[in-house]
Amino acid sequence: RLNWSRLRARLDALGRVGALEGGGVCRLALTPEDKAGRDLVAGWMRELGLHVSIDAIGNIIGVRSGLEDGPPVMTGSHIDTVRTGGLYDGTLGVLAGLEVVAALNDAGVTTRRPLAVGVFTNEEGARFAPDMMGSLVYVGGLALAEALATEGMDGQTVGDALAATGYAGPAPVAAPAVHAFVELHIEQGPVLEEQAIAIGAVEGVQGISWTEVTVEGTSNHAGTTPMRLRRDAGYVATATAAFMRDLARRMGGDQVATVGSLALTPNLINVVPGRARFTLDLRNTDEGLLQETERAAFAEIDRLAAAESCSVTRRSLARFEPVAFDPAMVDRVEAAARARGLSVRRMPSGAGHDAQMMARVCPTGMIFVPSAGGISHNVTEHTDDVHLQAGAAVLLDLLVDLAMP
Amino acid sequence: RLNWSRLRARLDALGRVGALEGGGVCRLALTPEDKAGRDLVAGWMRELGLHVSIDAIGNIIGVRSGLEDGPPVMTGSHIDTVRTGGLYDGTLGVLAGLEVVAALNDAGVTTRRPLAVGVFTNEEGARFAPDMMGSLVYVGGLALAEALATEGMDGQTVGDALAATGYAGPAPVAAPAVHAFVELHIEQGPVLEEQAIAIGAVEGVQGISWTEVTVEGTSNHAGTTPMRLRRDAGYVATATAAFMRDLARRMGGDQVATVGSLALTPNLINVVPGRARFTLDLRNTDEGLLQETERAAFAEIDRLAAAESCSVTRRSLARFEPVAFDPAMVDRVEAAARARGLSVRRMPSGAGHDAQMMARVCPTGMIFVPSAGGISHNVTEHTDDVHLQAGAAVLLDLLVDLAMP
Ligand SMILES: NC(=O)NCCC(=O)O
Ligand SMILES: NC(=O)NCCC(=O)O
Repeated sequence: RLNWSRLRARLDALGRVGALEGGGVCRLALTPEDKAGRDLVAGWMRELGLHVSIDAIGNIIGVRSGLEDGPPVMTGSHIDTVRTGGLYDGTLGVLAGLEVVAALNDAGVTTRRPLAVGVFTNEEGARFAPDMMGSLVYVGGLALAEALATEGMDGQTVGDALAATGYAGPAPVAAPAVHAFVELHIEQGPVLEEQAIAIGAVEGVQGISWTEVTVEGTSNHAGTTPMRLRRDAGYVATATAAFMRDLARRMGGDQVATVGSLALTPNLINVVPGRARFTLDLRNTDEGLLQETERAAFAEIDRLAAAESCSVTRRSLARFEPVAFDPAMVDRVEAAARARGLSVRRMPSGAGHDAQMMARVCPTGMIFVPSAGGISHNVTEHTDDVHLQAGAAVLLDLLVDLAMP
Repeated sequence: RLNWSRLRARLDALGRVGALEGGGVCRLALTPEDKAGRDLVAGWMRELGLHVSIDAIGNIIGVRSGLEDGPPVMTGSHIDTVRTGGLYDGTLGVLAGLEVVAALNDAGVTTRRPLAVGVFTNEEGARFAPDMMGSLVYVGGLALAEALATEGMDGQTVGDALAATGYAGPAPVAAPAVHAFVELHIEQGPVLEEQAIAIGAVEGVQGISWTEVTVEGTSNHAGTTPMRLRRDAGYVATATAAFMRDLARRMGGDQVATVGSLALTPNLINVVPGRARFTLDLRNTDEGLLQETERAAFAEIDRLAAAESCSVTRRSLARFEPVAFDPAMVDRVEAAARARGLSVRRMPSGAGHDAQMMARVCPTGMIFVPSAGGISHNVTEHTDDVHLQAGAAVLLDLLVDLAMP
């Protein structure tokens, strides 16, 4: 029923928007590349006869009418990427949603409830924090004005970047009435592939803590300044990064800790860094453990700064507690996979997803498909066609099941 | 005899070339700012009646004839700065040299030997490694072609940057015949100020080891990638930086170690860094200890890379053994300071200087004046006028003494 070759062709077509030399894509949120991708997807939505609305944070929602008015069954994801992203993170969920609509169109089926496909703004958080910004605003978890005022790492605000793309829509952003939400996504981790399982029935999303740390010391000459007289901001930053990796390893379980971004000033070979700015990404499925890790991180930063006579400021960029999806929705995903004869397991999500925001306003579930080598946020991100097809088929079954009865 | 107010005015005038908002200067080697500074200084040289020649690596040499032909007595330094530099590092030595010439002109004195003032290209090494490049090429320690092919951190080569400034001169670069070389420079460290001493008689320059390290891992998702499966290039870089600072502290003595420059790729909050590049600046007055530190650093980098399944490449950017100045020249500096009634002490230099290259071809000495707070390579770099005057006076006496007899 699903037009697989078109799904494949469109994944590839979006992969050419912001394509990087040597593979992968850079389609950071609200850049010209993101706009070009949005134009493509919005065009495909209109071709399918969807009623397309764009809201004030730039979320694109395409709705297919049902026999009855009322809250739609919704699917969707995002099309923004990190700077060195792959073809599937986000786009799979959007494009598979459109193929479900196309299959219903082709079959001449009208569901009882309306069906909606959403493209959420700035899910990655790679340009503007927090991540999942569009869906967070959509469900009322972040004020529109606050989101629009957010400065990206390049200094432009969400509001200005959004205006530049032409996707600052007229639709008001209000906590929507949605019957249920299902998101298809690549796992982005190694579990399904390692265990040779086709489908993940996602039980929830681990807690996410993002902090930006700025350390102020004194830039000075690398040759003449004795170690004891240094106020080396770079030392505080780098020692923190090393400590966090070691701490997360020691803690074990599913604790992860990442210093992904780090900048020294003036960043010269023979100058002791007078300033360092870095980010800390901490995650755990357990809120208590996540708080413990945060406390340990902040205490170590303060200890190192004191030892190096530096001052420190911290800014929270995102903080989401672990989310548990509606157990009935997890059951449904599992049952739908089984019904297709696919191997399936329940699992948490290591990555953040728009679904975790939608879970605040309606029963929500997620379908994971394997990621080759557990690689994502990398230009070599890959999922075999057979898994993409299986995931799309389960999505189709679930959406129809939710929209029909 | 010295025109102090003009020296002060010219230090300030050069400070306006590449001035940073809020103080300090950015006059990186062979940038338009460096060219503007060169134009000023070369103009002042011509006003003084010096015979100005510019060689193929861009060194500017102004010569004042003596009663006899033959090897000149030479002074000079550099006018390039680091990205966040001060007003005195390098410029003091050049401008004080010009005031010595002016004083002789005013007094109608012709020395026996010619007198030369040199402005050496790219002493800082902040844009192109190695540092002291112009003087190194001048004394035949680095082939001209190799120097011109050197790529800066912005990707431009020395040759292209030099051509753009118009300072790729016609004069051949050949090991010059110089009678003696004396450089006046700010200490850039805390010793003279801490001990309330006016003049440092520099005995030598500590050894310098500059290495660029590139670590290759795998960029991956910060939320989904378990710690045990990471190939975190950022960890190898940051753990090395922290290790080096701790090692240098443990070693004590005058060992210093600095990671001044560090770049992660893709440098995003939620991506495990797939690549890291950083620099290592190691210095010691003792060559054996410096080699020990290098060995410890490289072993630790290899150990960390193996633990994180990353690969590493190292590139030497500069390697200079400790330099001892001619003892007779050190004595002369000490005696000249005493004769002026100034407090003086013998000391090593923590920073690299053009004088250390000149020491390869002639008897060489250096005069240090105190740096307030030991701060340099910083926009707040400062030396009190009384110390600047004292240093210039000692320089005058020494140059006359060397050029007259
Ligand atoms: N799915 C995904 O990559 N989301 C980006 C936000 C995160 O870092 O988890
Ligand atoms: N004097 C000075 O700052 N030289 C720059 C080269 C170095 O890093 O020592």
